[in-house]
Amino acid sequence: MKLVTYRAGIEAPARLGVLRDDRVIDAALLGAAYGEALPDTMLDLIDAGAPALAVLRDLLAKPGMPPVGTSQPLANVRLLAPIPRPRKNIFGIGLNYVEHVEESARSLDTSKDLPKQPVIFSKPPTTVIGPGEGIEHNSRLTRQLDWEVELAVILGTTARRVTKERALDHVFGYSVMIDVSARDNRRAGQWIYSKGMDTFAPFGPCIVTADEIPDPQVLDLWLTVNGVEKQRSNTRHMLFKVDDLIADISQGITLEPGDIIASGTPQGVGAGRDPQEWLWPGDVVVACVEGIGTIRHPVVNATPD
Amino acid sequence: MKLVTYRAGIEAPARLGVLRDDRVIDAALLGAAYGEALPDTMLDLIDAGAPALAVLRDLLAKPGMPPVGTSQPLANVRLLAPIPRPRKNIFGIGLNYVEHVEESARSLDTSKDLPKQPVIFSKPPTTVIGPGEGIEHNSRLTRQLDWEVELAVILGTTARRVTKERALDHVFGYSVMIDVSARDNRRAGQWIYSKGMDTFAPFGPCIVTADEIPDPQVLDLWLTVNGVEKQRSNTRHMLFKVDDLIADISQGITLEPGDIIASGTPQGVGAGRDPQEWLWPGDVVVACVEGIGTIRHPVVNATPD
Repeated sequence: MKLVTYRAGIEAPARLGVLRDDRVIDAALLGAAYGEALPDTMLDLIDAGAPALAVLRDLLAKPGMPPVGTSQPLANVRLLAPIPRPRKNIFGIGLNYVEHVEESARSLDTSKDLPKQPVIFSKPPTTVIGPGEGIEHNSRLTRQLDWEVELAVILGTTARRVTKERALDHVFGYSVMIDVSARDNRRAGQWIYSKGMDTFAPFGPCIVTADEIPDPQVLDLWLTVNGVEKQRSNTRHMLFKVDDLIADISQGITLEPGDIIASGTPQGVGAGRDPQEWLWPGDVVVACVEGIGTIRHPVVNATPD
Repeated sequence: MKLVTYRAGIEAPARLGVLRDDRVIDAALLGAAYGEALPDTMLDLIDAGAPALAVLRDLLAKPGMPPVGTSQPLANVRLLAPIPRPRKNIFGIGLNYVEHVEESARSLDTSKDLPKQPVIFSKPPTTVIGPGEGIEHNSRLTRQLDWEVELAVILGTTARRVTKERALDHVFGYSVMIDVSARDNRRAGQWIYSKGMDTFAPFGPCIVTADEIPDPQVLDLWLTVNGVEKQRSNTRHMLFKVDDLIADISQGITLEPGDIIASGTPQGVGAGRDPQEWLWPGDVVVACVEGIGTIRHPVVNATPD
């Protein structure tokens, strides 16, 4: 299933939908049509867990889907980030694709050795923006705004000290995230400020449930700036795979339903290019992970007057 | 006002209270006794803002406080962390007391130069524990568990690009936090894993509202381990003051009501001692900030079988 969070109108509340054949089927309305109570937000669905997901899946398999009044054309709604407001900071993973480790060591202050353990940082919930929203460029703070396309992993169940073998059982689904960075705002090595500014986590367009991506390590991902391809790789090149990341983090930090892990970016970031390239107001960034979808974000001027 | 979150019994829900003369007055019950709707959780009170705080303050100033049935002895309740579940990661500030910068450079991998800008990291909501709860020691992960007493700052209103002069207007109140660290779990310079493990943010016993602490830079703070004083300083020695921190962070990252900033620790941490000292199961850590209160936490064995 491709799950989305959407608004039917500017003032309408954010609701949970299923994307199918260019239509958005409202989950709660679909449930109501069959006398089933289904959640109306993504986090509520994640919390409701496998039983709610099974009900939703069964309803969608019925003939005559979707019933009248439960869906509308995708073109008529506005998609938001699948989880518009995460309940904690997003876990970000640095230096998790081999060639990106190399380009970072060349251009940033990171080591040229491959990390022996996942390098973890975080992005506050205020970084999240939905499909189409602007990435803010504040020239008072940065002149080194950079892109990073990533596979985002959304946790479905609590994971505490799980093994690598059981780790993927805890995944609810997958999505696309751009880990935007203001490279000139790293501080004493800590990345939360440079990667944690408002609008620095474009996220969407949907969450594909884990059953449809049995192996998250075979997905192409790419990113363009103004139509020119800057990154193209495949999740098979991750240094620490999704199961490694969940097993590792959960040894010390309990992962919870709705948690998001941005699993790192491949080579081709602006900092690693010769000459270096940065994002400026007016640029358009498009990011895609195979089988999930594409997000498109303009860079907008947010310099204070 | 000293505000607490408490449970009247093991199964009782967490509720908002006011600490006065060794009694906890229930905020919502107090309001009800006078026909005023008052919030029953700390985050709801913070969201309700100055008007709700004014109502609460006015009621408490009435004669005959507290009315029968609205309070009970502190000894009969269990205090939780003032905000048991923050809505995002806690903002932590590293290297923010001059002598601590020196001891860190000697014993850890940080620079001996004073930071030119605040060094920011984060601790997930799962780090928070309330007064008396155990700090987990997992010997599979760490043999360098360390203490750091800190003044915690709780935001009351949204702060986006605020000036230093207006910064303290956004503070709801102050509390005490221990920034527990597993020093041997720093990764490529990032601190979220070493400082972000479950139970690594003892927090309490109360929030003192900002009106009672007009100057947060004149407070003694200290910490003992097994009754032996390890840290003693005063918030006047902060390199970046509370107003600096709020102004700085809010330039790039919008701060929101309920956000918590752990403002850094003075010298005297275990890593900086000669020989180095670490926490072990059975140890007891007590931390205090003047005018706020004291929290006491045992270190407990949490090594998996």
